[in-house]
Amino acid sequence: MERQLIDYLTKHLPSSDDLLVGIGDDAAILDWRTRDDLVVTSDMITDQIDFILADADPKLIGRKALAVNLSDLAAMAAQPVGVIVSLLLPSTHSKFSSIDPYELALQLYQGILPLAQQYDVVIAGGDTNCWNGPLAINITAFGAMQGNIPWLRCNAQAGDHLLVTGTLGGSILKKHFEFTPRVNEALSLRQQFNISTAMDISDGLSLDLSRICRASKVGVELLVDQIPISVDAQQLSLQDKDQLSPLEHALQDGEDFELLLAASPTEATRIIESNNLSCPITHIGYFTKELGLYSIDTESQRSKLVPQGFVHQ
Amino acid sequence: MERQLIDYLTKHLPSSDDLLVGIGDDAAILDWRTRDDLVVTSDMITDQIDFILADADPKLIGRKALAVNLSDLAAMAAQPVGVIVSLLLPSTHSKFSSIDPYELALQLYQGILPLAQQYDVVIAGGDTNCWNGPLAINITAFGAMQGNIPWLRCNAQAGDHLLVTGTLGGSILKKHFEFTPRVNEALSLRQQFNISTAMDISDGLSLDLSRICRASKVGVELLVDQIPISVDAQQLSLQDKDQLSPLEHALQDGEDFELLLAASPTEATRIIESNNLSCPITHIGYFTKELGLYSIDTESQRSKLVPQGFVHQ
Repeated sequence: MERQLIDYLTKHLPSSDDLLVGIGDDAAILDWRTRDDLVVTSDMITDQIDFILADADPKLIGRKALAVNLSDLAAMAAQPVGVIVSLLLPSTHSKFSSIDPYELALQLYQGILPLAQQYDVVIAGGDTNCWNGPLAINITAFGAMQGNIPWLRCNAQAGDHLLVTGTLGGSILKKHFEFTPRVNEALSLRQQFNISTAMDISDGLSLDLSRICRASKVGVELLVDQIPISVDAQQLSLQDKDQLSPLEHALQDGEDFELLLAASPTEATRIIESNNLSCPITHIGYFTKELGLYSIDTESQRSKLVPQGFVHQ
Repeated sequence: MERQLIDYLTKHLPSSDDLLVGIGDDAAILDWRTRDDLVVTSDMITDQIDFILADADPKLIGRKALAVNLSDLAAMAAQPVGVIVSLLLPSTHSKFSSIDPYELALQLYQGILPLAQQYDVVIAGGDTNCWNGPLAINITAFGAMQGNIPWLRCNAQAGDHLLVTGTLGGSILKKHFEFTPRVNEALSLRQQFNISTAMDISDGLSLDLSRICRASKVGVELLVDQIPISVDAQQLSLQDKDQLSPLEHALQDGEDFELLLAASPTEATRIIESNNLSCPITHIGYFTKELGLYSIDTESQRSKLVPQGFVHQ
């Protein structure tokens, strides 16, 4: 099966000047001679946690496996260059899948390849295994800083404005499969503005924000009435049995994969006024010297906010 | 659990000048400014295929997960620099493990860390997940060519001698856990000699040799009486129910992780005569213009050899 997949990929992967040695040798070689720092990230997505194989189109699963990694590179302001794809495929006779593993691998790649091409990311290699277990996909992604300063979580300053791309909440309805990793937005921002800090929202706005605060040793005041709530958050909230308001969904739903950004008041104002990204960008709060998360509503009521979101086991 | 592990790793990982940004941000950053090409490889090892969790010391499993990747870098003549470690840990209440996942992760790292230190490899980050499935470990490793020419599988020439490090066969008894990835040997060889081709033996001597031949469009004559057979191959052959001779074990057992090398007759002779590696190196054959694998015994009998070894599903 692995041999068959390697033959398929060797034929179907687009060539790239960046790839000096591709799939089929003991390792791949990427041209890094004209690049500087190497930004690396790795995310594994698994059946029953990040998707339900029985219910989902494998193309969307493959797409998501790549997109979550591109989102991490965007959160560092890195230019994506290449990825390594490792697949753990359920055997035909296991209870974990009804699809032939080679067919499943092809469908996963049919989701990975178009997104890789869209962002000019080379698939440098990987590892493919069949086993008597559920589907898991691990992608390791490489990016380059190209002389730019990476956006680290620890650099938010008291006084900085908090900005967010896109709209938040209700990702489970479809966005967790279909989201746009904010690569182009990050590259556009890094070129035009000074950003103190960035992070992608993978576990929920309030929880991920608490992580920036912890790393930067600052607090935050969230302008809750400014938070851009998605249509899906509103729709989810209307569903039977749903216990949460649209705002609560926006505050604590995971997998929005939008960028949280900190910038000085001057820079933040320039960013909002320039309005030249392909998605909305909204000012939703202020970083403060005082530690802790607080919400501020339209009547300037200030209340303590408990960070909530998806907690990894 | 993941948070707890990140805290543990942040405290216990040795610092490195190569690591500009380590565990805890969206991505890690390695200093690649003084390096050239980026060599990347990724190997996933899984319960029931590469080890039996119920029977094995998790330290040895962790060690193996790293060692197989270092072996791939050695096979390219690359200097290992860093790795990304992704763990898929069985939940406490799953049927796949009796160990608490945090405890299991620590034990795996107790096997990974000493080997990483031994080869001066920085652990740049990773991803840790618990799930209701068996243990799997994916490591992606980065190496640098440092101006040297990589050893590609496609460059064996008719007339080249075939060399192999160490001894072969019977790895299942213990070597598959305890083998020395031939990193130092590869770096020493690349500095002193011109090597045409190299590959590490992961699936068996005859099967992996057939892959070099396919990639290089050459054949090979194996001097079967010269093949360095390990004590473990002999021991395995003596066991009840074992159907194979020691030579057959050496020819087809997987996971020896020794280096197969091709070099011109002059270079090969220099290598054998210099005898300055920390392991044996043996001349075991000749690459030929005529395609196919043939064995030659002491009486110069030439017979067709069918490549055999571990075939990935």
